[in-house]
Amino acid sequence: MDTLSEFVSDYPDFPKEGILFKDIMPILASPKMFSEVVENMASSEIVKKAEAIIAIESRGFIFGSAIAIKAAKPLITARKPGKLPGDLVKKNYTLEYGESSLEIQRSALKSFSDFVIVDDLLATGGTAECVIKLLNKCKKRAIGISIVIELSALKARKRINIPIDSQVAY
Amino acid sequence: MDTLSEFVSDYPDFPKEGILFKDIMPILASPKMFSEVVENMASSEIVKKAEAIIAIESRGFIFGSAIAIKAAKPLITARKPGKLPGDLVKKNYTLEYGESSLEIQRSALKSFSDFVIVDDLLATGGTAECVIKLLNKCKKRAIGISIVIELSALKARKRINIPIDSQVAY
Repeated sequence: MDTLSEFVSDYPDFPKEGILFKDIMPILASPKMFSEVVENMASSEIVKKAEAIIAIESRGFIFGSAIAIKAAKPLITARKPGKLPGDLVKKNYTLEYGESSLEIQRSALKSFSDFVIVDDLLATGGTAECVIKLLNKCKKRAIGISIVIELSALKARKRINIPIDSQVAY
Repeated sequence: MDTLSEFVSDYPDFPKEGILFKDIMPILASPKMFSEVVENMASSEIVKKAEAIIAIESRGFIFGSAIAIKAAKPLITARKPGKLPGDLVKKNYTLEYGESSLEIQRSALKSFSDFVIVDDLLATGGTAECVIKLLNKCKKRAIGISIVIELSALKARKRINIPIDSQVAY
């Protein structure tokens, strides 16, 4: 996987000044690299041990979905407010550029206790922490986080005390 | 696939009054059904003939990603405004409940001419038509649309004159 970083493009000052945006789209454009990344994520201990996968909207859907198929695990979505119908569990969070909340359908969680959180990128860890707390509110737990890119300088590992599996770190 | 409709939940008056929301989340909760749906979509003639897959944000990412992996085709995302960095092609559209626009990275399109559009649901066809026109602006073409759910009463087929492959119609 030493060439994965060649498939991540840097965009300075996006979406706003001072942010160096890491674009994962070139990974998706390469069937070989995309498949390799998904294979590695799906075969991790964290994913193996989890009963179900929680994918964070929107780019988390891309990896969460492919991992769910590879690992044959149920896929659950954590979505932005107003997107999911039904009885929801909700939690607010602050992130690198803004504030928002995430919602999960209560019915989607009920058959399981141990979940893995999947997203494309881990920055400050605010979004992942939101999902961890949301699960805890329901007496469930996140047993780990699987992401493609980790921005180590933002120290999410200081904030999050469950195993983190990243494919490439900056 | 005659049981697929058992994995689609109805929510009346969501996200607003008068809309009957079709929720695909129960499909994702069943590894067997999700895998079957993705397998069927990925093995369609439309997907086979296409050089690359365009997945529409956000639920289209879920199916587009899994299909891209199964079919070993490049995956391109059509995103809501402000989400993608770089040089973009943009097109406005009106849909069942509101107005928006979609953006695609110009660099993602450049190596291909024939694309398949993937989404979870086809209602009035406004979103799909937006992507078709966006591709045409770039002298590219959509050779078909692959979706899970088709709402036949909304007559998207009258508006869209390329092949449409749906897994279940209402």
